Amino acid sequence: MTKEEVQGATEEGQQGPSKKGLKKQQKEAEKAAKKAEKQAKLAAEHQSTEEDDFAKDRYGVPAMVQSQQKLDRALVRVQDLTPDKADQLIWLRARVHTSRAKGKQCFLVLRQQQFNVQALVAVGDRASKQMVKFAANITKESIVDVEASVRKVEQKIESCSQQDVELHIERIFVVSQAEPRLPLQLEDAVRPDGEGEEEGRATVNQDTKLDNRVIDLRTTTSQAIFRLQSGVCQLFRDTLTKKGFVEIQTPKIISAASEGGANVFTVSYFKTSAYLAQSPQLYKQMCICADFDKVFCVGPVFRAEDSNTHRHLTEFVGLDIEMAFSYHYHEVIESITDTMVQIFKGLRDNFQTEIQTVNKQFPSEPFKFLEPTLRLEYTEGVAMLREAGVEMGDEDDLRSEHLARTYDTDFYVLDKYPLAVRPFYTMPDPNDLKYSNSYDMFMRGEEILSGAQRIHDAQLLTERATHHQIDLEKIKSYIDSFRYGAPPHGGGGIGLERVCMLYLGLHNVRQTSMFPRDPKRLTP
Amino acid sequence: MTKEEVQGATEEGQQGPSKKGLKKQQKEAEKAAKKAEKQAKLAAEHQSTEEDDFAKDRYGVPAMVQSQQKLDRALVRVQDLTPDKADQLIWLRARVHTSRAKGKQCFLVLRQQQFNVQALVAVGDRASKQMVKFAANITKESIVDVEASVRKVEQKIESCSQQDVELHIERIFVVSQAEPRLPLQLEDAVRPDGEGEEEGRATVNQDTKLDNRVIDLRTTTSQAIFRLQSGVCQLFRDTLTKKGFVEIQTPKIISAASEGGANVFTVSYFKTSAYLAQSPQLYKQMCICADFDKVFCVGPVFRAEDSNTHRHLTEFVGLDIEMAFSYHYHEVIESITDTMVQIFKGLRDNFQTEIQTVNKQFPSEPFKFLEPTLRLEYTEGVAMLREAGVEMGDEDDLRSEHLARTYDTDFYVLDKYPLAVRPFYTMPDPNDLKYSNSYDMFMRGEEILSGAQRIHDAQLLTERATHHQIDLEKIKSYIDSFRYGAPPHGGGGIGLERVCMLYLGLHNVRQTSMFPRDPKRLTP
Repeated sequence: MTKEEVQGATEEGQQGPSKKGLKKQQKEAEKAAKKAEKQAKLAAEHQSTEEDDFAKDRYGVPAMVQSQQKLDRALVRVQDLTPDKADQLIWLRARVHTSRAKGKQCFLVLRQQQFNVQALVAVGDRASKQMVKFAANITKESIVDVEASVRKVEQKIESCSQQDVELHIERIFVVSQAEPRLPLQLEDAVRPDGEGEEEGRATVNQDTKLDNRVIDLRTTTSQAIFRLQSGVCQLFRDTLTKKGFVEIQTPKIISAASEGGANVFTVSYFKTSAYLAQSPQLYKQMCICADFDKVFCVGPVFRAEDSNTHRHLTEFVGLDIEMAFSYHYHEVIESITDTMVQIFKGLRDNFQTEIQTVNKQFPSEPFKFLEPTLRLEYTEGVAMLREAGVEMGDEDDLRSEHLARTYDTDFYVLDKYPLAVRPFYTMPDPNDLKYSNSYDMFMRGEEILSGAQRIHDAQLLTERATHHQIDLEKIKSYIDSFRYGAPPHGGGGIGLERVCMLYLGLHNVRQTSMFPRDPKRLTP
Repeated sequence: MTKEEVQGATEEGQQGPSKKGLKKQQKEAEKAAKKAEKQAKLAAEHQSTEEDDFAKDRYGVPAMVQSQQKLDRALVRVQDLTPDKADQLIWLRARVHTSRAKGKQCFLVLRQQQFNVQALVAVGDRASKQMVKFAANITKESIVDVEASVRKVEQKIESCSQQDVELHIERIFVVSQAEPRLPLQLEDAVRPDGEGEEEGRATVNQDTKLDNRVIDLRTTTSQAIFRLQSGVCQLFRDTLTKKGFVEIQTPKIISAASEGGANVFTVSYFKTSAYLAQSPQLYKQMCICADFDKVFCVGPVFRAEDSNTHRHLTEFVGLDIEMAFSYHYHEVIESITDTMVQIFKGLRDNFQTEIQTVNKQFPSEPFKFLEPTLRLEYTEGVAMLREAGVEMGDEDDLRSEHLARTYDTDFYVLDKYPLAVRPFYTMPDPNDLKYSNSYDMFMRGEEILSGAQRIHDAQLLTERATHHQIDLEKIKSYIDSFRYGAPPHGGGGIGLERVCMLYLGLHNVRQTSMFPRDPKRLTP
């Protein structure tokens, strides 16, 4: 690795601070050193007063794990603590979720991700009163190594995921100490909104959660959401791979030549300017023109829209599909809806625990879908809504839960949108120039995918771009892609965060983005 | 879909051109319309002169596929054309790879991706001399639908992938016409460098290939490279998913607060500035602090380095890993090397055709690896190189094929780099402060991964950042992530394009990036 690369590899900058900043920093470092010294002194004092403690080697704060040794000591997972481990002596590394001292005992709940178990340190052969006091003083969220005996319990422990056993701790060491004041409490962060108000207990508002995402992501709800999201990506790719699709990687930094216009972020690119891709559209289509036949990609998509809504992000993850078809773009719709159905089934069958966990905090109905997927024409949808008393023009946005209710499905396709409301590269309907071979897909009444048959003919594409008053010079390379033989093709782009939000019946896309970006949020 | 979203969804900008531009454009559109009119006229004339042609309904240029109908006509794949289809009448859609008229016959090679088959139109019952002429005039790279009878051949057709059959064409229609002048010839683009020179035949230089990537990607070599690349991603994810890793999505637009310094691209973000992430490092680590335990991500990584070398890109795909470990960071090394070995085995076992195809144009030795993976300490490596007469300082870059040759492996790990050459967040060696718990991994003597145990303690991290003169204010949120309990952890980032390049023994990373970005290239 060259020295340049070492520097390139660090995400934290190498730019030096100002002189003033350096001085301040030095002071802070000195302060930190003093604090450390004080702590060491306290620990030493502690040790000297505890010299009469028979259990003094059984607890404490050892040196930071710096890979000093390769210990031959297996760590058991909390989720594996079941009655068949009864009376075994095991080692475990977990967080202190809660602790409560009670006379000569200290009860701890030890947590690993969504799993937790009750543990007990009690004055006796294996623990002194100093050791119990030590355990009681360990701050919440600290990580500890414990050696403990697994015991079956008579009465189920309802408050823990491991209800049939508890741990009797014989040794306890702090691996990483949490600061005593947490910016938010995990139990507050998972409390259902209504419940908090009713019982006068705290809930945590979204900005506090997002500002302290490292802690908020530890909640059972967050763990479940993002494990399910990982599952959506995997199901998407596995389904398409089985269908013969090839995964592609498309560039995110693009030149002015193929892009331009509104809602695009500008990047300084050496001595020139570039843009962040608003979709992999052009590149997906180029891959079709390059004979990859069926392609997909999963990657970030950037929209410089100043939209502060529950469903807009400035950066989100696009699940994109593009494929050549034989005769009719409904072949594309069928491929995409089948992929969605496979995702819905995979989630239903393999992520039920995660779904239930999220539902505890955010109750919602199970996601309903039909096979085959319901496909309505846009005009039918409009007519139905009008009949139901919803006022709208022919070319208006059609976002309503009414259709979902009527057909008892949370997933449907609206087909044949008016040509005027779609991008210039959309193939016009061959029978009615007012319409187009384009479609949107909806989950629980909200749009999650937009797609179409694309124009694969350079001449028609030029005409349509001119009609839309688009500068042909800027899209030259795009149009040129179709000059050397291009098969009929179509596709669409799905927003990952929206799919997760709507599948789980959540109400804000920031809940399904680990580190959301919107016009007002760029951190953490 | 709202109107804003429609506009947002188009990658081609909606910004109107200037008045002058519009006028020019209108002229161009008029020109295009005239041209189309002329073509239509020609086609009409053609038809009238061909009225005495008995085969006139068996060939031609039908209307553009605009999803007019759902034809119940199966299309056979070229790769499925084997002797067991002999004497069947089939339909096929393929590109015209080459065509050669010879008296009353026209020989075509029809191509689909890496597969091709010989086809023949001959004057007879099913084809008139006009039809043969029509077929002979179809431009290379055009896409055609043909109805043909499959015939077994006596002598293997060595020049085609389907060697045992040929097609006797009975109908031929042009689905998409290629312009007659191709910017590059496919057969030139796949010619091995040496061969071209020796025989006075053309090869295509890299910039021409990249400028016309849509055509260059159609070559057997490109098809094989990017199918293999798709395989690398799949093997990477499948292996890690089996090991219990969770896939995460990390933001690419980041605030100044957590980044800064050299080699970073700046983005205009509404009324402020932001940066493009140089790695998902911070976010991977935050996920570990947030109890995800083992995570991976696949996504773009941006480096504003003005490096014009065979192995540097300004945007590449990072395969990133981060995991908590129990006692020693070698647990991380073992996880990563095992993942790499699974990738190597998967490629060897499932992508042999692709490897052979690339080797035809770019010969190389099969990729060699050991199990378990060779791990040397940096100092051992330096000592070996010095012994072999290579001059270098203790902290110099260690990139050499010498080690690979000595141990007969194309994959190895160098461990325990000097602390001074690694980023500030690298965990120092507990036994020797001059070194660190960090490692690089190499393929065919070039670095593909850089990784380390990270400092998981806020206080030590502060000290190390101060030592590196980094502005603590800018990395506050990073350091704060470790204040509420963080497990010991480590990881690394792999460059996808480098892995593919080096596995295949190629010599330029632009060959394994579909649409490469470097300081001088932003298009297509």
